[in-house]
Amino acid sequence: MKIGILGYGNLGKGVESAIRQNDDMELVCIFTRRDPASVHPVTEGVSVYPVDEIEKMKDQIDVLVLCGGSATDLPKQTPEYVKYFNVIDSFDTHARIPEHFANVDKVAKENGHVAMISCGWDPGMFSIMRLYGSAVLPEGQDYTFWGKGVSQGHSDAIRRVKGVKNGKQYTIPIDEALDAVRNGENPELTTRQKHVRECFVVAEEGADLAQIENDIKTMPNYFADYDTTVHFISEEEFLANHAGIPHGGFVFRTGVTGFDKEHKHVIEYSLKLDSNPEFTASVILAFARAINRLSEEGVSGCKTVFDIAPAYLSPLSGEELRAHML
Amino acid sequence: MKIGILGYGNLGKGVESAIRQNDDMELVCIFTRRDPASVHPVTEGVSVYPVDEIEKMKDQIDVLVLCGGSATDLPKQTPEYVKYFNVIDSFDTHARIPEHFANVDKVAKENGHVAMISCGWDPGMFSIMRLYGSAVLPEGQDYTFWGKGVSQGHSDAIRRVKGVKNGKQYTIPIDEALDAVRNGENPELTTRQKHVRECFVVAEEGADLAQIENDIKTMPNYFADYDTTVHFISEEEFLANHAGIPHGGFVFRTGVTGFDKEHKHVIEYSLKLDSNPEFTASVILAFARAINRLSEEGVSGCKTVFDIAPAYLSPLSGEELRAHML
Repeated sequence: MKIGILGYGNLGKGVESAIRQNDDMELVCIFTRRDPASVHPVTEGVSVYPVDEIEKMKDQIDVLVLCGGSATDLPKQTPEYVKYFNVIDSFDTHARIPEHFANVDKVAKENGHVAMISCGWDPGMFSIMRLYGSAVLPEGQDYTFWGKGVSQGHSDAIRRVKGVKNGKQYTIPIDEALDAVRNGENPELTTRQKHVRECFVVAEEGADLAQIENDIKTMPNYFADYDTTVHFISEEEFLANHAGIPHGGFVFRTGVTGFDKEHKHVIEYSLKLDSNPEFTASVILAFARAINRLSEEGVSGCKTVFDIAPAYLSPLSGEELRAHML
Repeated sequence: MKIGILGYGNLGKGVESAIRQNDDMELVCIFTRRDPASVHPVTEGVSVYPVDEIEKMKDQIDVLVLCGGSATDLPKQTPEYVKYFNVIDSFDTHARIPEHFANVDKVAKENGHVAMISCGWDPGMFSIMRLYGSAVLPEGQDYTFWGKGVSQGHSDAIRRVKGVKNGKQYTIPIDEALDAVRNGENPELTTRQKHVRECFVVAEEGADLAQIENDIKTMPNYFADYDTTVHFISEEEFLANHAGIPHGGFVFRTGVTGFDKEHKHVIEYSLKLDSNPEFTASVILAFARAINRLSEEGVSGCKTVFDIAPAYLSPLSGEELRAHML
């Protein structure tokens, strides 16, 4: 499988490194909106092209991995580049998925390509777990918790506060809430009861720390509905201890069975990830394999993780899977 | 969807009760090898037929759920009844899956039906988790733990010991082993380090308890390779506290990513089930829905859980799934 990458940020680099862990995949080239001379792939022999030359590679790539952002990049890029390639993206604006799906599906079908949108861990693996859970326990409740991990959006919000030089925000699920769900208590949980937000802030010299803390804690949408703690730390400590991008979370389905609904069941799926972008990239590549297979079978159109039989993700044959993994 | 059940033991009853939780399903009839007059379904208006009249119902049922045992029933029943019906079974003799698959696939294709074998939680949901895990983290390790739960095979083995009136065996995963895996330590675990076996025994009057305990603990294959504890209890206590059939377990995939493999990831899936047969039945019905859809699409042959796209399990449409669950 020949893979192309569009966008060489954290996710693009994650895809590059994950390709080296999949023997049936090869990185052909990277497309960038920056000056190609400024992009230095780790993998030897990989070309870097300006994105406006992307069309010339249309017969050289089996699946193009789109590594842009969901706010402005992907709504344009995915429908645009599915004209030339099978594509996969990690579009994660949940509310706009139906619209994005429709846009991509139309162009994919017109051009005989396969696209997958919203692939990663949430949306992605977590979505799959929500679906399996609700299908298997139709009378039950869903719970999704995120963290402990870095929220990029909340970290950005902190850095926009006056007097803040640098900042990082960790979303942390509350143990009592997790335990109540695990024990089958079916709790009704408010936003505040599910997660806390912990912020590490490097303040500018002479900044009003009390004001910064207040501005963060009262920020609507981002922090006001949560119990938030703010730690002021030095630039050195920030760089030493908060350089990583860990994340993770939990998906639960709890439900009942039996003629009298007398039996409880708890399904729990959790991820503990040292690197959010690298794990996302690893999920994307497994689904890229599926996309390529569907394309070889003559399928076209937009797909999501819901539409892919698990066997399509593995390099092993059906026989091998049945013999060793079933 | 019209469902038929063959075999009205714990699993068959679980299927009957789970059908009542799925609005798109209806129980048509139960087939039995016993005298039909001795079988009393809970659901009103459900007919009970002797199994040798099964063929006459061939146009009345969308999916027949086979609730027999893996040792002798299913190897015969599944290839036999796929002549007349779409069928699903929970065949769980892992080593014989390839042979069973081949037998069922041949007859299913000859007769234009869809079959699914080895559906439940292990094989079944756990198999799916092993597959997703290995596809998403190609450089990593798998761990499966079972319990805490009742092992039918080990309970049967206890009851065959001289002087034992009744007995039940719980398989229990060892916390230290679970924690080592969860912490990403990639431990190499022996059989003894993964699970302990706890037995509750009602002895016959005047039986030699020390001999019973020794016979159990030294039993090859079943107990000799484990740390086993034996508790002697009264018949009353046995009936009061050990009537249930709980089970569960854990599937882990741990792996690394990054150019220097510097980032660890832990995927954990766990089940905590009050009723093993009722949960198994619930999984079977979700996949029965998928089997019925494939049949309506003109597919034939034998499938496993690996071959089914998650969307096929849900009564919701693709649009609804994308809007609410992705």
